[in-house]
Amino acid sequence: MTKERLYLYDTTLRDGQQTQGVQFSTSEKQRIAVALDELGIDYIEGGWPGANPTDSDFFDAAPKVRATMTAFGMTKRAGRSAANDDVLAAVMNAGTPAVCLVGKSHDFHVTTALGITLDENIENIRASIEHIVASGREALFDAEHFFDGYKSNPEFTLNAIRAAYDAGARWIVLCDTNGGTLPQEVKDIIGAVIAAGIPGSHLGIHTHDDTGHAVANSLAAVDAGVRQIQGTLNGLGERCGNANLTTIIPTLLLKEPYKSAYDTGIPAEKLESIRKLSRLLDEILNRVPAKQAPYVGASAFAHKAGLHASAILKDPSTYEHVDPALVGNSRIIPMSNQAGQSNLRRRLADAGFDVDPKDPALPRLLDEIKEREARGFSYDTAQASFELLAREVLYTPRPFFDVDRYRVITERRRNAKGEVISVSEAVVSVWIGTQRVTSFYENDGADQFEDAGPVNALSKALAKDLGPYQSIIEDMELVDFKVRITNGGTEAVTRVIIDSEDTSGRRWSTVGVSANIIDASFDALIDAVNWKLVQDGAVAV
Amino acid sequence: MTKERLYLYDTTLRDGQQTQGVQFSTSEKQRIAVALDELGIDYIEGGWPGANPTDSDFFDAAPKVRATMTAFGMTKRAGRSAANDDVLAAVMNAGTPAVCLVGKSHDFHVTTALGITLDENIENIRASIEHIVASGREALFDAEHFFDGYKSNPEFTLNAIRAAYDAGARWIVLCDTNGGTLPQEVKDIIGAVIAAGIPGSHLGIHTHDDTGHAVANSLAAVDAGVRQIQGTLNGLGERCGNANLTTIIPTLLLKEPYKSAYDTGIPAEKLESIRKLSRLLDEILNRVPAKQAPYVGASAFAHKAGLHASAILKDPSTYEHVDPALVGNSRIIPMSNQAGQSNLRRRLADAGFDVDPKDPALPRLLDEIKEREARGFSYDTAQASFELLAREVLYTPRPFFDVDRYRVITERRRNAKGEVISVSEAVVSVWIGTQRVTSFYENDGADQFEDAGPVNALSKALAKDLGPYQSIIEDMELVDFKVRITNGGTEAVTRVIIDSEDTSGRRWSTVGVSANIIDASFDALIDAVNWKLVQDGAVAV
Repeated sequence: MTKERLYLYDTTLRDGQQTQGVQFSTSEKQRIAVALDELGIDYIEGGWPGANPTDSDFFDAAPKVRATMTAFGMTKRAGRSAANDDVLAAVMNAGTPAVCLVGKSHDFHVTTALGITLDENIENIRASIEHIVASGREALFDAEHFFDGYKSNPEFTLNAIRAAYDAGARWIVLCDTNGGTLPQEVKDIIGAVIAAGIPGSHLGIHTHDDTGHAVANSLAAVDAGVRQIQGTLNGLGERCGNANLTTIIPTLLLKEPYKSAYDTGIPAEKLESIRKLSRLLDEILNRVPAKQAPYVGASAFAHKAGLHASAILKDPSTYEHVDPALVGNSRIIPMSNQAGQSNLRRRLADAGFDVDPKDPALPRLLDEIKEREARGFSYDTAQASFELLAREVLYTPRPFFDVDRYRVITERRRNAKGEVISVSEAVVSVWIGTQRVTSFYENDGADQFEDAGPVNALSKALAKDLGPYQSIIEDMELVDFKVRITNGGTEAVTRVIIDSEDTSGRRWSTVGVSANIIDASFDALIDAVNWKLVQDGAVAV
Repeated sequence: MTKERLYLYDTTLRDGQQTQGVQFSTSEKQRIAVALDELGIDYIEGGWPGANPTDSDFFDAAPKVRATMTAFGMTKRAGRSAANDDVLAAVMNAGTPAVCLVGKSHDFHVTTALGITLDENIENIRASIEHIVASGREALFDAEHFFDGYKSNPEFTLNAIRAAYDAGARWIVLCDTNGGTLPQEVKDIIGAVIAAGIPGSHLGIHTHDDTGHAVANSLAAVDAGVRQIQGTLNGLGERCGNANLTTIIPTLLLKEPYKSAYDTGIPAEKLESIRKLSRLLDEILNRVPAKQAPYVGASAFAHKAGLHASAILKDPSTYEHVDPALVGNSRIIPMSNQAGQSNLRRRLADAGFDVDPKDPALPRLLDEIKEREARGFSYDTAQASFELLAREVLYTPRPFFDVDRYRVITERRRNAKGEVISVSEAVVSVWIGTQRVTSFYENDGADQFEDAGPVNALSKALAKDLGPYQSIIEDMELVDFKVRITNGGTEAVTRVIIDSEDTSGRRWSTVGVSANIIDASFDALIDAVNWKLVQDGAVAV
């Protein structure tokens, strides 16, 4: 059976940038564009040149991609020709192989927002698309508010898109701009469009998630004959976001009927990289990854219920609709009050611990974990702390070092020149075997690129002289920390999760809990150091 | 036109508790149950008594509700009668008006996970439901893995649910347990079930979001004839979560065809409380609210694009599919590089500032905001800091006080008894008019319920003696802080957002940015104090 071609169009860099709190730098856009291209996306909408300084810069130095790089803009305004519209000219000047212009296809918007006649609007569409086609580029028309427009005035809306089609547009993209259309309406209206003479091969769909139907509407549109899907990574976008390509792509490649019916241009083996691509975006934007995101979320394959966990151990397909490895994810059996020993044994096995199922230390470890979680600890993400705790309860190893005390001072004052400066200094004393080593670290605020914080000062003091272990910890770096106030029994406590990295590229998470944020951070730091010492085979003196 | 009754069944307290990282206390369950009842939910699934200590406690003291309180459990095991199954007995002993039992309806699970014959399984279902009905309670049967089961062995699956129906179950709930079914399959299979003799009036739907279709599948099921929807608040649940009632309920009440066709039992005016209910759950679980959640998310009605913002100002329905006020939400025009002055003017107007559109301070304020955002500040959520900045640029008011310096020391050491303690002390010096006031605050770790952290010590020192302003700030409390490492130009900086509350119930957010977390926290604290002074009419000395 020959598969039909289904095209994927990513607008993370343009519509995604309209998300509250999101602002890409030019270099970040380049990184994302390259990653999208590596996945196998057909179209990359890079931005709106002229409207946004970073967008113009991006197109000036756009990376070479196999995908069709596309510049976004809007149809020419009334009262001037397409060639004389300066806003359109800036879009054309980006020199991309494709240009996508948004234009009004809802009569209410033409009369209220633009204040022109319906005929003028259709002429604006026709002339703009013709202008692109005449310049030898591929033309796409984003029919704004298409479904609302069709419900309000089907004749005008069809005329609007017909104008673009007749002018030579390769794609007419039907946009559910307000996100308020439901799947059955999407199917019915697309059926009417195809019946009116615009073939599905030239139709695209662009949805928003305001009713939680962005993904469903996109697939419903494909069911109805549309052959291009527009969306963003991680469902980024205005208000509730665009259609989530991170969710749609695995469904197209792994689930029937799409798997057998369509060729998305994305090779099956590339699908494994989709989780990393999702995280890359989160990392660039410094956004907390959505734990429960379909396919790529940290919890997407996390089986908590005791019943589920035991069934999974017998046969994963009992509770998983797809194999997590296909999307670069993995199965998790987290710790919780509902977890029995089977969960724990599984997690230990995954971490490389070889434990006798009858080992009496196992119930002790489970109790220790539950007791700590009740106090505010969370071992779901702090995998390195989990491993250290397991090691401690199971093997009671000799500690590498013991912290005797620490003190950290943070101060804001004026320096000799009268300038306001912030400084931190830390003193840490540890016992290594029978030796007591005290280290001091001070950031005096002179080097503006040095992190002047107390946690960093502690981290630097701790790592300044760890005696025989020094060479092992020298390339460690604190790269992120997250702080939450949470419940630890009867009072609120602070939970700190620290991410560390070393030059081998390893990244590990550790947790600390205390009413005192510095204390919690310090404990997480100690765990981070100890984990690296274990991993790199240090021997306790 | 008479509306058909559509029943809503909430399983936040049971299936929602299977979310990674979620654990309800008994009192938290009670709060949520009462709130669900106030909204008008028909069924509240309180938990699995006997399987979970907090669940048993909850049912022992279940709040009085108009909703049908329901206990969850599983069908009896093979080899014993329903009356002699101790697990089932614990569920019955909760004494609820309704009992919902999950049972296998997928042949693969019966043979692989349970290891019994298909006939034994059907008998387990029949006998368990009969047992509930005989005790005078309402019986519900959760047909686990129903859709996969139907695809695998339609005869067995139909027999399984028919057994429950014939035994007197009020509801047969078709569960997409793995979350892998798509909307068209849901419709087709439900059509077959109804054709086989189980009426839609007795059918329920229970979906999961593993392909992003939980909401779409639920509504597709209703379209196909089902009359009960099971879901959770905020889409809580195992893996990718259950069907999100916070998304479904507004759609049922506000969007056609559901609005005209169905009566959900939720009065229209109650819908306004749905956003608060969503936040209540996030607050109880100490989860970051999903900004982009449909209807209730902070960004759900946030219009960032300059084009959208100007159109909205002319007529909100241009870019909103429903009026945000109907769901207790509000329109936001956030600051960003794409915002023009229209966005800023709108936000100032919303905050109560009366500014002349031609005021030259407006472009200065916009530049100040953009420059600070480039340095790492975020004014999207730190509304109080935004208002203070606006006040400063627009009116250059005399400051209430000036910080001269601060110093905070955090220490972990042993006390006189040899116990390890963590202590923090802070000294803060401020100028109030011509007076310099220095305050000291020390937490010596003796009172284990006192927050021993450095940020709290600073906060207490700052608030110890603010001279003429003391009475105004006395009831202020630091209730939450969030820390992120983010980009501030060329280097990483720490952004701290602090939430404060006072006895009037007001809650406000302020932001601070620095490479030093204490410094960033301190700046956010200063803003928090200043905001309260402004709000409560303090006069600068």
